[in-house]
Amino acid sequence: MPNLLHVDASLAQEGSTSRSLAATYIDAWRAAHPDGTVTYRDLALTPPPHLDWATLSAAFTPPEQHTPEQTEGVKLREELIGELEAADELLLSLPMYNYSVPSTFKAWVDQVILVGRTLQQPPAESVLTGDRVTVIATQGGSYGVGTPKEGWDHQLPFIAHVLESLGATDVELVRVEMTLAPVNPALADFTDVYERSRAAGESALRARAAA
Amino acid sequence: MPNLLHVDASLAQEGSTSRSLAATYIDAWRAAHPDGTVTYRDLALTPPPHLDWATLSAAFTPPEQHTPEQTEGVKLREELIGELEAADELLLSLPMYNYSVPSTFKAWVDQVILVGRTLQQPPAESVLTGDRVTVIATQGGSYGVGTPKEGWDHQLPFIAHVLESLGATDVELVRVEMTLAPVNPALADFTDVYERSRAAGESALRARAAA
Repeated sequence: MPNLLHVDASLAQEGSTSRSLAATYIDAWRAAHPDGTVTYRDLALTPPPHLDWATLSAAFTPPEQHTPEQTEGVKLREELIGELEAADELLLSLPMYNYSVPSTFKAWVDQVILVGRTLQQPPAESVLTGDRVTVIATQGGSYGVGTPKEGWDHQLPFIAHVLESLGATDVELVRVEMTLAPVNPALADFTDVYERSRAAGESALRARAAA
Repeated sequence: MPNLLHVDASLAQEGSTSRSLAATYIDAWRAAHPDGTVTYRDLALTPPPHLDWATLSAAFTPPEQHTPEQTEGVKLREELIGELEAADELLLSLPMYNYSVPSTFKAWVDQVILVGRTLQQPPAESVLTGDRVTVIATQGGSYGVGTPKEGWDHQLPFIAHVLESLGATDVELVRVEMTLAPVNPALADFTDVYERSRAAGESALRARAAA
């Protein structure tokens, strides 16, 4: 009875490519795992607060000495960490905003990375060790080799390193690019690039979910 | 009468290397610009909210049709953009958290980057064109060539691209590394690396502020 944690992040509830691709994965996953459960965390609807000093310092303060502010901060942090610890699989569906991840996802990362807890010194296992992790990374333009903005992708390489630091050993990164081509006239010539990228992404996601 | 906008971000109010280095710059800048003014934005004390759909969509909705939620979101966004527009110089003092910028800084970036406003299509000037921009980027470890985590720096390259996208033409990036060496026994052997890096950074900042 596998438990899949799905972390969603697009600010757009309607017309979002990353949400649509995630639905493709989830549908295929439910079909392949009829006894599985999905835990859903929508970072746009319930944005995690920025990690603050009170919550950070609570990690090295005895619980009985916590201030009310620390107790409250720790409660939310534990909720996010608990979801990650309870998951056998993780699906991240993340749009690129301003060359990086949404600020809500960075806040989530800062909340769930806790040295000595979710992140252990190897060879000890960290929270994602052995879990199947799938990342849907959508990009409005293209940042591939030879493009004008080659090297400007601070989304996918960052996500990959976060997952590695959390001990992930089974990661598939699915990038779908040029998602703005159908709606931005300046990118209209790249609509076929988007369509091919999306079709390849959907195919990879269906195969991954069913495996 | 130059106006300097200083954006500070460390979660730690005490013992922060990035805050201390920023103070070095500000002191030298005030001495060199006795008639200058400093606008201070502390992203830890007053964390900007994550950009949300209401605020994002307000940019393409006539103001008279804004919901109360949009009006409130736009007010804060305009406050942050206004500080940037009013600045002749910009100082960013940013620690690395989990291989990237603090989530508060990403939220600030998502709030202030507004296409057609702060970001124009070249050759039109964007908000930072012609401004002197100085970045203090502190890193707990080292991410240089040949280190075990070479390529894991998603802080400084991201900041550089954000500044470029905002039209910045006069940028100095000051990286101070191994800031955890004096406090983390596992990094004690690298204390001299930190000290040299910090001394070089302070020297560069004093020269930059006085120029």
